[in-house]
Amino acid sequence: MVAVGAGVHELRLADWTRGMSRSMLRQMIAVVSRPGILSFAGGLPAPELFPTAEYAEALAQVLAADAGALQYGPPFQPLKAHVVELMAQRGVSCSEQQVFLTTGAQQGLDVLARLLVNPGDEVMLEEFVYTGVQQVVAPYRPRIVPIAIDLEEGIDVEEVETHLANGVRPAFLYVIPDGHNPLGVSASRERRQRLVKLAGAYGVPIIEDDPYGLLYYDGAMEPPLRAHDDKWIFYLGSFSKILAPALRLGWIVAPETLIPRLTVAKEAGDLESSALTQRAVAAYLDAGHLPAHLARLRAEYGRRRNAMLSALRRTFPAEARWTEPKGGMFIWVALPQAVDTAELLQAAVDQEQVAFIPGRAFAVPGCRAMDDARHCLRLNFSNCPPEQIEEGIRRLASVLEKVITHGGFPL
Amino acid sequence: MVAVGAGVHELRLADWTRGMSRSMLRQMIAVVSRPGILSFAGGLPAPELFPTAEYAEALAQVLAADAGALQYGPPFQPLKAHVVELMAQRGVSCSEQQVFLTTGAQQGLDVLARLLVNPGDEVMLEEFVYTGVQQVVAPYRPRIVPIAIDLEEGIDVEEVETHLANGVRPAFLYVIPDGHNPLGVSASRERRQRLVKLAGAYGVPIIEDDPYGLLYYDGAMEPPLRAHDDKWIFYLGSFSKILAPALRLGWIVAPETLIPRLTVAKEAGDLESSALTQRAVAAYLDAGHLPAHLARLRAEYGRRRNAMLSALRRTFPAEARWTEPKGGMFIWVALPQAVDTAELLQAAVDQEQVAFIPGRAFAVPGCRAMDDARHCLRLNFSNCPPEQIEEGIRRLASVLEKVITHGGFPL
Repeated sequence: MVAVGAGVHELRLADWTRGMSRSMLRQMIAVVSRPGILSFAGGLPAPELFPTAEYAEALAQVLAADAGALQYGPPFQPLKAHVVELMAQRGVSCSEQQVFLTTGAQQGLDVLARLLVNPGDEVMLEEFVYTGVQQVVAPYRPRIVPIAIDLEEGIDVEEVETHLANGVRPAFLYVIPDGHNPLGVSASRERRQRLVKLAGAYGVPIIEDDPYGLLYYDGAMEPPLRAHDDKWIFYLGSFSKILAPALRLGWIVAPETLIPRLTVAKEAGDLESSALTQRAVAAYLDAGHLPAHLARLRAEYGRRRNAMLSALRRTFPAEARWTEPKGGMFIWVALPQAVDTAELLQAAVDQEQVAFIPGRAFAVPGCRAMDDARHCLRLNFSNCPPEQIEEGIRRLASVLEKVITHGGFPL
Repeated sequence: MVAVGAGVHELRLADWTRGMSRSMLRQMIAVVSRPGILSFAGGLPAPELFPTAEYAEALAQVLAADAGALQYGPPFQPLKAHVVELMAQRGVSCSEQQVFLTTGAQQGLDVLARLLVNPGDEVMLEEFVYTGVQQVVAPYRPRIVPIAIDLEEGIDVEEVETHLANGVRPAFLYVIPDGHNPLGVSASRERRQRLVKLAGAYGVPIIEDDPYGLLYYDGAMEPPLRAHDDKWIFYLGSFSKILAPALRLGWIVAPETLIPRLTVAKEAGDLESSALTQRAVAAYLDAGHLPAHLARLRAEYGRRRNAMLSALRRTFPAEARWTEPKGGMFIWVALPQAVDTAELLQAAVDQEQVAFIPGRAFAVPGCRAMDDARHCLRLNFSNCPPEQIEEGIRRLASVLEKVITHGGFPL
């Protein structure tokens, strides 16, 4: 053996890890989840609304009856049938053969990226975007093409078209059509239809992430992009927000011909999703609990959204603007240019024990909107009862008033 | 919009998908799991030995008591403490800060590959290898450096050393030290220690996959590589074989400084492992069920191994050779050169309704052992009671006798 002393070598990591950073979002959530903090930071559903008793019953039933429930096994077909039914509620017609079960929608995103992205490819993302998609594409060291998004109608389709007309051919465009994270906005019907046409016309796949489509508070959402096209639109669904995150269960709706390749990519990731969870969720759905549960979520989350919007109107400065989401969990607030929301967060946590996520956490690095993002913030309204929302917004407004009055952050 | 007709474009997939194939293993398991087939094919634990009632109780208890159980949340620290204790049973001293929880050991492998492999890197694999590792590295289009492995003492350390001395620097070497899949062999103590020294001397990380280390039938296994080095050895553990696969829960033991990067890579894959499962497994372990459960597994799997070995001795031709595993779930059989095990499988399924996996399914493509693999097969002994094992081996021997007597496959 060559006598090279231990400790001489250093572990060599893959090149992409040099630019690696943990999601600023998830780091911040850890910081602001200290006890006593009234937090609008996380993207957390309300645990008191989880169907805990019914799901416990479903688990017990499956474990008592089904010897295969704890074993390895193929995807559970009856759950796919339920997904087809959920998709129909979203206005999408699809078959069980087009449904691919995943360990949460995050895995769906990861598996699709494995199939679609070559190292160095271009990827088209909205300027303010769910941070998980940036983490998924980071190992491919892609060139990100940022697309503007406005607070009323969603993604700027003109800009998408200009890029495509100029020859840009991203590996995919990623979009959240409803209850956008972080903006809360839903794309207009016209923009959805134009996006679908662009995808087909230029041969660019769109990953449509729809965790919030069934959480609407002013009547049903527009049908998602997948309702208009079954070749270029890859739809991601999730049980995390309509049932519970700890299920770690979601799905892709994709062309049937791609399912075998999705299977290979997913097997590399975690072999398969829990057979027990698949069966228990199917048993919960078999029992017919979901419609009443969704009605309860819509009623309560709607109340919380209304409480937050009315508290913002009552207490926030006249120069502030915010989105009025039709669904989902988030409101996006644009404050006067003088306010830096990273500094505001520090003051809010220290002085009033209230937290949110600064806009910069969601801005695609280097995009034009980065400056804009400095005076924006994301508020979550799903994880606090209305009284706490009112109290929290009041506290936040009082910190904000001091900041604006004193022209800065004295502390 | 440029008027390009829909249907003109075809979806462009990532380059690596051209060479993509579904694990031959997993495809075959689907084929041979038809009802009525006596199967030694899968790597399945025995479902009748799953601690179903105790786990159901743990789930019910957690769901009744812990409001956070269905929510998003950080890794569950008490489960890490249990992992430290399990590692101590394996002769490994580590801290909770070195334990990283994963969605099964497969995810551990995937996350480590993301951190360690650049596109086009070399990766060192034994010639007969767990197929999941090939699926994990496929997207990086690596150059595989195959390493011989013998049926008595495991991986050929001489060959590893020769490559390293000649300047080969793989992104990692992958090894299963005990109850090797597919060979069933355990590496000798001397080979383990030499491997550890080579890793440090040449600065090459080793991924040590140890799903079977606690399933021993002739007394405890040698300590794994990780017992001798905490810098270059990345240890993968799993609850799939000692509790149940549908938990989808495993762990990595890695240097503490790497845990934040593992976190980023795992978040991209599935955000986090189920908070409910983490808590329920911890509750099961808290209740002290594991020692009696492991004793039961060792006794019953030991009986099954013995039944298979004695049936092989009684019924298989004198020219056949096989491994005598100290643990795990697999026996590897080398048949006379004239026998092609892919053809034998067809005959065995058709004539005697008995199944196994042909050796070729595990051979690294293009390696020297590929020819050898043609007359080898893998038998699983964990998933059938002893009587069925005797019956199945008898049937397999009778097909084999016909094949050898007639000098080929007449059917």
